Amino acid sequence: MAHPPETKNRLHKIYAIAARIFYEKGYDGASMQDIAKAVGLTKAGLYHHVGSKDRLLFEIMDYGMDILDETVVEKVKDVRDPREKLRRLIAGHIDLVVRARDLEITVILHENRSLRGALRKKINARKRQYIHNLCELIGQVQLQSGVPPLVAPVSAAFALLGMLNWLYQWYRVEGEIKQEDLTRDYTNFFFRGLLGSA
Amino acid sequence: MAHPPETKNRLHKIYAIAARIFYEKGYDGASMQDIAKAVGLTKAGLYHHVGSKDRLLFEIMDYGMDILDETVVEKVKDVRDPREKLRRLIAGHIDLVVRARDLEITVILHENRSLRGALRKKINARKRQYIHNLCELIGQVQLQSGVPPLVAPVSAAFALLGMLNWLYQWYRVEGEIKQEDLTRDYTNFFFRGLLGSA
Repeated sequence: MAHPPETKNRLHKIYAIAARIFYEKGYDGASMQDIAKAVGLTKAGLYHHVGSKDRLLFEIMDYGMDILDETVVEKVKDVRDPREKLRRLIAGHIDLVVRARDLEITVILHENRSLRGALRKKINARKRQYIHNLCELIGQVQLQSGVPPLVAPVSAAFALLGMLNWLYQWYRVEGEIKQEDLTRDYTNFFFRGLLGSA
Repeated sequence: MAHPPETKNRLHKIYAIAARIFYEKGYDGASMQDIAKAVGLTKAGLYHHVGSKDRLLFEIMDYGMDILDETVVEKVKDVRDPREKLRRLIAGHIDLVVRARDLEITVILHENRSLRGALRKKINARKRQYIHNLCELIGQVQLQSGVPPLVAPVSAAFALLGMLNWLYQWYRVEGEIKQEDLTRDYTNFFFRGLLGSA
């Protein structure tokens, strides 16, 4: 749906607040009443804006995928060198997962199974597109390296997504490991795993 | 608590069924009524057996950690060579995560934040023990290799746990990638990441 900018901002604020509630209570544990209260609407008002609870979850995830596209994918679009492009993609993806303020991202990661039917298919198609592009890029990096492929791009892509997406479960920016060091270590670790050398 | 074997089996059956309900509905979305119905007890009967809903979640996770200890940790206990020990640990951990029948394991992975207070601390202590042992083993593998450490054992341990634990989100045993091939590729990928060569 196309919304005027003001409505869009209003909706994004609702998504951000609802994402926090889903994060804290889980999708199934959070009621529309909880969310309406947090965003300062009546329950009827909330339904008017977002349609239904599963539609709201979908919109949050869809918005999270927009954030991923805008802050990670778009930024590396013009980088020609595959290896440099992958490096920056890894750094951007880590940044997105560890910045606790974008809870839309955590909701995507955590409420993977809560969405059903057509809405689930739509989100999964967007995820698959990201994974598909990642596989292609990994294949290009392998080709560029001149080393015969040591691992199928798809296995390498999921190994990488596992390393990066799992960060939301344990990594805290205020902890002992600096994000800068984590990013360097994980990037080098991945390139060694992929190519045999960093 | 020490229970006679019969009671223990009865409880383990309740945990397995409750794990399936938590898996399907999420911890917050599942009611004690749902679980009582699934295990064939009255709600009062269920409370009599398990105490409370958060106690039940704790017991499921605690039982999941028992499964991890019995089917993974215990089996490699007597392996002396660090590298071979780590190899077998990875294979065992993968096997545990991808075998969908042990939903207690998925509940541990997914309901990480649902537990609170003292019960949460107890489970986290068991997880930390596993991670601590993994870090030690990784350190031994680095030492044995003679290569100067390329990455801190703790970062390597979490990279590995990310790769392996994320499998529950995407990997299906009935899919195109055979578990045997996945295990080989992931193991070699990890060893290259850690040491620069598999």
